[in-house]
Amino acid sequence: MRKHKERGPEKQILPRMRVTTGGEIALGPGKIRLLELLERTGSIVKAAKRMDMSYMRAWVLIRTMNKCFRKPLVITERGGKSGGGGAVLTKTGREALALYHQIHAGCLRSIQPGWRKLRRLLR
Amino acid sequence: MRKHKERGPEKQILPRMRVTTGGEIALGPGKIRLLELLERTGSIVKAAKRMDMSYMRAWVLIRTMNKCFRKPLVITERGGKSGGGGAVLTKTGREALALYHQIHAGCLRSIQPGWRKLRRLLR
Repeated sequence: MRKHKERGPEKQILPRMRVTTGGEIALGPGKIRLLELLERTGSIVKAAKRMDMSYMRAWVLIRTMNKCFRKPLVITERGGKSGGGGAVLTKTGREALALYHQIHAGCLRSIQPGWRKLRRLLR
Repeated sequence: MRKHKERGPEKQILPRMRVTTGGEIALGPGKIRLLELLERTGSIVKAAKRMDMSYMRAWVLIRTMNKCFRKPLVITERGGKSGGGGAVLTKTGREALALYHQIHAGCLRSIQPGWRKLRRLLR
């Protein structure tokens, strides 16, 4: 999702989506990256480390997401089999992640005609 | 463009676009807001004040934009008729602004079907 961000000098457009509810940021690029890493590693510690953030910060992001949705996106366990906080995405968590990816991909497709014109103006 | 950001507790999705070239951010929500205000006020001081940023900061953003495009987006004059730095959008500046708005609007339309599903999962 964010891997294109620092890819170098070529011309790029990077859409980012922020989802809010009740004055809170329910989802954004950082929380989505965290969900992806939690799904892949099953561990809050490992996911946080890959994102260069503290365990506590990851935990706060998870708590915010869980609070913003009708059902939690992530089930956490202190300690846990993977050591230092296991984490499993719920069905709602996987759905929210897939919908965000779908929305992002749709946006990327939709912007191509305008982007082709805009990029010609760039140095 | 950004006026929906702090509108309150209802569910929202806010797409933001960042355009980069040569490792620099050529355009993003802040620079676009600055272009809009420069077009409206013709003054760097007034535009900066409305964005709650310093004259110097606005000036740096303008310089970055002008450097990133083949032709400058903004012609500035120190002092100037409006007092404290006049600023006029060039033809390229108006084109870049219009294309960004068009890209943003296309994205907003494209994300509606996915967003309708995602918002149902939100509290």
